[in-house]
Amino acid sequence: MKPANIFESIADDLDKEVFDLIIKSNNVLIERIVSTGQTSDTGWYDQDQSEWVIVLKGKAIIAFENGEEVSLKPGDHLNIPAHSRHRVKWTDPSTETIWVAVHYR
Amino acid sequence: MKPANIFESIADDLDKEVFDLIIKSNNVLIERIVSTGQTSDTGWYDQDQSEWVIVLKGKAIIAFENGEEVSLKPGDHLNIPAHSRHRVKWTDPSTETIWVAVHYR
Repeated sequence: MKPANIFESIADDLDKEVFDLIIKSNNVLIERIVSTGQTSDTGWYDQDQSEWVIVLKGKAIIAFENGEEVSLKPGDHLNIPAHSRHRVKWTDPSTETIWVAVHYR
Repeated sequence: MKPANIFESIADDLDKEVFDLIIKSNNVLIERIVSTGQTSDTGWYDQDQSEWVIVLKGKAIIAFENGEEVSLKPGDHLNIPAHSRHRVKWTDPSTETIWVAVHYR
């Protein structure tokens, strides 16, 4: 077994957010997300599964439909319950923001 | 909602490994593990669930029953399938080793 490194093997083309699948089972999906200033300003995420996210590099702001905003710096982690409508309001445009997201039932 | 930080709120008493529960659902358990030189040399872990681990600070070596050893530094992550017998052979005694483990079915 060989470990992968969450800070390495990042795509060169970061015009869009990049999602890399790490684990997929019947009940859990773990992915790495690399953002470079993108936001999800086209609409709200409304997910059937809960999602635990941790920011490992960079910075981000997640906005919730109730008006609440949560700022995330490296090491900050947050649980987003299923159907808690949210969007990524901001990610640091000056660096890569690296997230790990665990989607689970 | 307020994020927690994975590098903060660490127990003062680190004589033993410290396990902090982050998420527990029917199908997934996410925990933070803080090691300070401890090893699991009392025996093998043989788990019914698979486990994905990432080291976020410090260093560790995981040994498998087949003799394989995997060194982990910050950012390194590894999937340990269910019933893949393993143990923590070494963690850096000079600092805290902070892991996130996701146990899943």
